[in-house]
Amino acid sequence: MLCIVFEILYVHLKNAHRNWSDFWMSVSLNRSYNLPLNLAGRAFVLSFFFFFFTDVFDEIKCIHLSLFLEEERRMSHMGFRCLEISRWVICGLIGILTGLIACFIDIMVEKLAGCKYQVIKETCDEPIAAGSGIPQIKCYLNGVKIPRVVRLKTLLVKVLGVICSVAGGLAVGKEGPMIHSGAVVAAGVSQGRSTSLKRDFKMFEYFRRDTEKRDFVSAGAAAGVSAAFGAPVGGVLFSLEEGASFWNQMLTWRIFFASMISTFTLNFFLSIYHGKPGDLSNPGLINFGRFESDSVAYYYYELPLFMGMGAIGKVYLGVALHMKMSKFNVSVCVRYVHRPCLQVMEALLVAAVTATVSFTMIYFSNDCQPLGPEHNEEYPLQLFCADGEYNSMATAFFNTPERSVRSLFHNQPGSYNPLTLGLFTLTYFFLACWTYGLAVSAGVFIPSLLIGAAWGRLCGILLIWADPGKYALIGAAAQLGGIVRMTLSLTVIMVEATGNVTYGLPIMLVLMTAKIVGDYFQEGLYDIHIKLQSVPFLHWEAPATSHWLTAREVMSSPVTCFNRIEKVGTIVDVLSNTSTNHNGFPVVVQVLDSDEPAKLCGLILRSQLIVLLKHKVFVELARSRLSQRKLQLKDFRDAYPRFPPIQSIHVSQDERECMMDLTEFMNATPYTVPQDTSLPRVFKLFRALGLRHLVVVDDENRVIGLVTRKDLARYHLGKHGLEELQLAQT
Amino acid sequence: MLCIVFEILYVHLKNAHRNWSDFWMSVSLNRSYNLPLNLAGRAFVLSFFFFFFTDVFDEIKCIHLSLFLEEERRMSHMGFRCLEISRWVICGLIGILTGLIACFIDIMVEKLAGCKYQVIKETCDEPIAAGSGIPQIKCYLNGVKIPRVVRLKTLLVKVLGVICSVAGGLAVGKEGPMIHSGAVVAAGVSQGRSTSLKRDFKMFEYFRRDTEKRDFVSAGAAAGVSAAFGAPVGGVLFSLEEGASFWNQMLTWRIFFASMISTFTLNFFLSIYHGKPGDLSNPGLINFGRFESDSVAYYYYELPLFMGMGAIGKVYLGVALHMKMSKFNVSVCVRYVHRPCLQVMEALLVAAVTATVSFTMIYFSNDCQPLGPEHNEEYPLQLFCADGEYNSMATAFFNTPERSVRSLFHNQPGSYNPLTLGLFTLTYFFLACWTYGLAVSAGVFIPSLLIGAAWGRLCGILLIWADPGKYALIGAAAQLGGIVRMTLSLTVIMVEATGNVTYGLPIMLVLMTAKIVGDYFQEGLYDIHIKLQSVPFLHWEAPATSHWLTAREVMSSPVTCFNRIEKVGTIVDVLSNTSTNHNGFPVVVQVLDSDEPAKLCGLILRSQLIVLLKHKVFVELARSRLSQRKLQLKDFRDAYPRFPPIQSIHVSQDERECMMDLTEFMNATPYTVPQDTSLPRVFKLFRALGLRHLVVVDDENRVIGLVTRKDLARYHLGKHGLEELQLAQT
Repeated sequence: MLCIVFEILYVHLKNAHRNWSDFWMSVSLNRSYNLPLNLAGRAFVLSFFFFFFTDVFDEIKCIHLSLFLEEERRMSHMGFRCLEISRWVICGLIGILTGLIACFIDIMVEKLAGCKYQVIKETCDEPIAAGSGIPQIKCYLNGVKIPRVVRLKTLLVKVLGVICSVAGGLAVGKEGPMIHSGAVVAAGVSQGRSTSLKRDFKMFEYFRRDTEKRDFVSAGAAAGVSAAFGAPVGGVLFSLEEGASFWNQMLTWRIFFASMISTFTLNFFLSIYHGKPGDLSNPGLINFGRFESDSVAYYYYELPLFMGMGAIGKVYLGVALHMKMSKFNVSVCVRYVHRPCLQVMEALLVAAVTATVSFTMIYFSNDCQPLGPEHNEEYPLQLFCADGEYNSMATAFFNTPERSVRSLFHNQPGSYNPLTLGLFTLTYFFLACWTYGLAVSAGVFIPSLLIGAAWGRLCGILLIWADPGKYALIGAAAQLGGIVRMTLSLTVIMVEATGNVTYGLPIMLVLMTAKIVGDYFQEGLYDIHIKLQSVPFLHWEAPATSHWLTAREVMSSPVTCFNRIEKVGTIVDVLSNTSTNHNGFPVVVQVLDSDEPAKLCGLILRSQLIVLLKHKVFVELARSRLSQRKLQLKDFRDAYPRFPPIQSIHVSQDERECMMDLTEFMNATPYTVPQDTSLPRVFKLFRALGLRHLVVVDDENRVIGLVTRKDLARYHLGKHGLEELQLAQT
Repeated sequence: MLCIVFEILYVHLKNAHRNWSDFWMSVSLNRSYNLPLNLAGRAFVLSFFFFFFTDVFDEIKCIHLSLFLEEERRMSHMGFRCLEISRWVICGLIGILTGLIACFIDIMVEKLAGCKYQVIKETCDEPIAAGSGIPQIKCYLNGVKIPRVVRLKTLLVKVLGVICSVAGGLAVGKEGPMIHSGAVVAAGVSQGRSTSLKRDFKMFEYFRRDTEKRDFVSAGAAAGVSAAFGAPVGGVLFSLEEGASFWNQMLTWRIFFASMISTFTLNFFLSIYHGKPGDLSNPGLINFGRFESDSVAYYYYELPLFMGMGAIGKVYLGVALHMKMSKFNVSVCVRYVHRPCLQVMEALLVAAVTATVSFTMIYFSNDCQPLGPEHNEEYPLQLFCADGEYNSMATAFFNTPERSVRSLFHNQPGSYNPLTLGLFTLTYFFLACWTYGLAVSAGVFIPSLLIGAAWGRLCGILLIWADPGKYALIGAAAQLGGIVRMTLSLTVIMVEATGNVTYGLPIMLVLMTAKIVGDYFQEGLYDIHIKLQSVPFLHWEAPATSHWLTAREVMSSPVTCFNRIEKVGTIVDVLSNTSTNHNGFPVVVQVLDSDEPAKLCGLILRSQLIVLLKHKVFVELARSRLSQRKLQLKDFRDAYPRFPPIQSIHVSQDERECMMDLTEFMNATPYTVPQDTSLPRVFKLFRALGLRHLVVVDDENRVIGLVTRKDLARYHLGKHGLEELQLAQT
C-alpha cells in the first residue's frame, strides 16, 4: 500500500507539471505542500527546479574545454581503452539488469494471473504509475529533458505498476514500462551512483555528462524492447529510430550488446523458473508463439488484400479516437482530477467497467467451443458453457492480453465465431482507449495488437478460404502500425516476436500502408502525446518549405552576453532574472579602445556559472589565497545532473563586486553560423550535432543572436504551408 | 566474347588507376592509347579526369545558393510533395530493377550450372569483372568518389561476369556484384538519364546532385543485399552501417521500401520461372534453406563453445592470409600483369588449378554415401562411387557454393565424413583466397560461408553429441564475421537467410566474438582493401588520442582564395595549375581602404567555376549583351556529374581581362571553425554533415586555412598511439 500512496503523490506531481507554462507557479506550490509528504525522505521537488537549466547535452563536453582537454591529454592510449571497456561493461550490466526486471515482471504477472484465474477476482486494480513512458523516452532520446524521467523511484513505481495493471485485467500491455525500466537502469548504472539512495560508488565518473548518459539510455531502451519482445535487433532499431541523429557504429554495437545480454538473461532465468534450465530458444516476455511455416505461406494476390487491411479507416479511427480520449483524459487529469484520490477513483471505475462489460459480454455470447485435444489454451474457461466446452469470449477477455493474442493467432479455424470477434473488438477498443489515458503504467502495444488480431481474424473468417490466424497477424500489425508508426523497428519486432521471417514482407507492406494512410490524416499516438506536452521536440528534417527562412528571422535577439572577465554581481543578477531563463550565454571580448561591438570568444552555460559561483572562483580570491585548490572537472561532474538553483547560492555584497574570469571554463570554439544561413541548414546542424545553442554572428564575428531548440521546434508544416506553433514558454 | 574483350580493357583501365599517385601519368597514357579501343563509342577516359574535381557532396546544394533558394521559393507545397513522391517512385524502380537483375543472374547461373552438371565441363572460366565491388560501394557511401563506380557499363560487366564466374566453378559468390548492381541501377534511375547511352529522359532533374544521388545509391545497395539474401531488413542495416552518417527516418523508410520491392520482384519472377506462380515465401537469391526449429534449439552451455568457435585463430588466419594473398594479387596486377591477356591467363590458371585440385580430391577421397530417400541433393554425383551411392566430396566441390552450403547445413548427420570436410576446408580456403584477388566479379560472402560451414560441421561431428548442421551454421557465421566484420547487418542477414530467428542469439555472440578477436589482430577484409587503395576514407570517430590536435595543425595553409569579383585570367590560371588541384576555394572580400587581410564571404567549387567559365558569365559581357540568358540551376545540373576539364574550355586573351562576379553562385554561408577547434570536433562536423571543405577562420573572420577529408583521413590510431598516414596525393 505504501508504494501506492507514494505513487499517487508521484502521479500528482507529474500531472501538475504537465502544463509547462504553469511551471513557476506550480514549483512554488509544490515546494510548500509536498515536502512533508515525501516518503522516501528526499526533497525531489527542490531538485527538479534545476532540470530546467541543465540542457547542456553536447556543450558540457566543451564548456570546460581547457579542463577537459587537460584530462584527455593526461590520459594515455591505455586510458582510452579502459574507458571503452567500461562502456561495454556498463552495457552488459544494463542488459543483465533489464533482463532481470523483465523476468521479475513476467513471473509476478504469471503468478498473479494464476491467482486471478483460480478465484476470478481482481486483486490489484489500483493505479500505480502513469502512462506508457514511451513518449517520455522518445523526448529524452531526442534531446529534450523531462524532469525525473530516469530516476530510480520511477523505475520501482513502473515495475510495481505494470505488474498490478496487467495482472489486474486492465486493457494495457507491459512493453512501454519495460522500455522505460531499461532506460532508468541505464541512467543509473552508467553514472555509478544513485542520488536517490545517496550512494556514490566512485565508478564511471567519466560518464557523468549528458552525451554519454544519453548513449547509455539508448542502450537501456533497446534492452527494454529486447526483453519485452525477445527482439534484440528490433530493440536496436527502436533506439535508432527514436533517438539517433548521428549513427555511430561503435555505439550501435554496444546497444546491440546490451539488447543481446538482456534477452539472454531473461531467457536464462525464465528457463530456470520454468524448470527447463538451459533452453535458451525461448523468446522474450511477449511471445506470440511461433508461426510454423507452410510450404506456401501466402500468395501474391493476397498482398493487395493485406495492404487494404493496413489502409482501412479503422487505423485512422483508432488514432483519432485514441487521441480524443487521451486528450480528454490528460485535460481532465490536469485540470480537474488534481486530487490523487480522484485518480484512484477513476482507475477503479475503469477496472469496474472493464469487469462489468466483460462479464456482460461473456454472459450474452453463446460462443461455446468444444475442448478438443488440440486446443492451445492453458486456462480454458467453462463459464456459462456445457461440460467439455469452453467459452471463447471469456478466453479473449480474461487471459492476459498477450495470451489472448497468441490464441487469436494460433487457434484452429473455427475456434471463434465472427460475432464474438466483432463484439470483442468494439468493446475492447473503447476500454483500451479509456485505459490508455489513465494514470496507470500502461503500454499501448499489446492492446493494439489484441484489437488488430481480433478484427484481422474476423476478416480472415469472412474470407472463408483464408487461414484466420494469418489474417489475425496482419490485422495486429496494421492496427499497431497505424497507432505507433514505427515502420522499420516494428517490422523487425513483429518478425522476431512471431519467430518467422516468412511473414516479413507482408508485415512490412501492411505497416507501410498503415503509416502512409495514417500520416495523411493524423500523427502517430506518441507524437500526439509529445505535442500535448508541448516540448521542443525536433523532427528529422526542417519543414519542406522553410528554405526562405534564415537564421536572422529564427534567432532570439538581443542576447545576454558576458564579458570574458565579468563582475560577479552581473552574473548573479542575470541568472536570477526569471524572465530570461536562458541556459547558454555567449562570452564576448570588448576591443579596448573602440566603440565597436564586442566579438564572440566563447559560450558558457548556466550550470557552469552556478558551479563557478558555488566554488567562488573569483579573480580577487585567487590572488589572495594562492593555496586555494584549483577547480577541477570533478567538481562539475559531482554537481551533475542536479545542479543547485541560483537562489541557493549565497553571494555577499562584497563578493558581488569581485570579478570572475570565464576564459578557462567557457567553450572557446562554439559553433556559429552567419545570419543569412537558411533554416534547413541550421536545423541540420542542430540535429546532426545534437546542439542546444547556436550563436549567430555577423561577418565581423560579433554576436547578433542565439538559436535554441525552441526557436526551431516552433516551425511546423501544416495544411496551409508553414505554420508557427505557440510553444509553452519555460 | 565481345563483352569479355571489352571487360578486359575495363579491368585494365581500372587497375592502372588503382595506384592513385600514378594518376596524372596514367591519365595521359590512357588518353593516348585507349581511346581507339573504346568499344562502346564513348570516350570515358576523358571523363574520369573530372571525377577528381567533383567532390562536392554537400556543398553543391548550397554553392549556387541564391539560385537554389530561388527555385525553392518558386516551389509550392505541392511541388515538395511531388518531389517526395518521385523519391518513392525512384526507390520503387530501383527495387524492381535490382530484383530483375537478381532474377536474371539466378536463372542464368542455374541454367549454366545445369549444363555443367550434365556435361561436367567448364564453359565460362574467363575473367569478366574485377573485384567484389563492396569496398568500392563502401567508399562511395562514405563520401569518397571512385571513378566510374556507378556506370551502366560497370553494371553490364558485373552481371555477365558474375554469371560466368559462379557458373564457371570459381570459388566466388554472387552477393558482392549484386550489391554493386543495385548501386549502379540506383545511380542510373535517379538521374533520369544515361550519359553512356546518351539519353536524357528529362526526368528527375532535381535529383542531379551528389547528396540526392548518394541517398539513392544507398537504397540501391540495400536492394542488392535484399535481393541477394532475401533479407530486406539486413539490406537496410548494411546501407546504414556502411553509408549513413546522419540517420534520417524518411530516407531509411525509402531504403526499406526499395529493399522490400527488390525481394518481392525477385520472388515474383522466380516463382513464375519455377512454375509455382504466386508463392512469395521464397527467400532471396542466396538461400540456405530453412532451419526447422526443434523444441530445444540449443543449450546455454553451448554458448561458450559457439563463442570459442567465433574466436579461434582460423578467423585471424583467414584475414591475414586473405590480405597477403590479395595484396600480392593487387600488386601483381598493378605492377606486372598490366596486359589484359596476362590477367586472362591468370584467371584461366586459377580455373584450371581449381578443376585439377577438385578432381584430385574427389578421386582420392572415398567418401561414398548411400543415395537414401531423404538426401537433399538435387544433383548427386556418382563419380568414382558404386551404384546407389554418391560422392560427398564431389557434392561439396561441384555444386554451386550456395548449394554446397545448404547441404552442409541441412544434410543428415553422417552425410560427410570428417576427413572429407577437413581436406575440403583447406583446399577450398586456398583456392578462395587466390580467386578473391583475381580480376573477376567475385563475392567473398559465399566462399567464406562455405569454408566456415565445412569446418563448423567438422567441429560438430567431432563433438559427437551435437547436431552437425547447427555447428556448420555457427562456423559459417564465425568465418564470415571474422572476415567482413559487419556485426549488426550480418546477424540480420544470416537470420533472414536461414529463415529462423531462434539462432539469432548464438549468431550474434559468434559474430561479436569474431569481431572482437579479429579487430585485435587485423582490420576487416574490406577495410584492408580500402587501405590498399589509399582513399581518404573517414571512420566513425576521430582517433581517441587526437584531442590535443587543433584545426590549425590539421588544415592546409595557405589557401588559394578568390575575390568576390575576380579576374577571369586569375581563375583560369588557378584552375589550370596542376600542383594545387583543390576543389573548393574560399571567396573573400577586401576592405577597400585598408591593408587588413580579406574577410571570408563564401565558398565556391571548382566545378561551379568551370560551368561559369564555360557559359562566359563575365561582368563585361552581361553589360554589353543585356539579352543574354541568365545562368540557371539547370546549367549546373546538366553538367553534373561529368564536368568538363579546364583544358577543354577556351578562354581568349581578351576574355582573360574580364571580371567574373561570384556573388550569386558561391555558397554565402559556408561552415567555418575557429583555429583552436579540436580535431574530434572538426571530425564530427565532417562526418555528421558530410562536409568536404571546412574553412578555418580567425576571430576577425579572416581565412587562415582549409580542412579537407584528406587532412582528416591522415590521422590513424596505430599500435604506438596516433600515427600520420601518408595518403596518396591526387
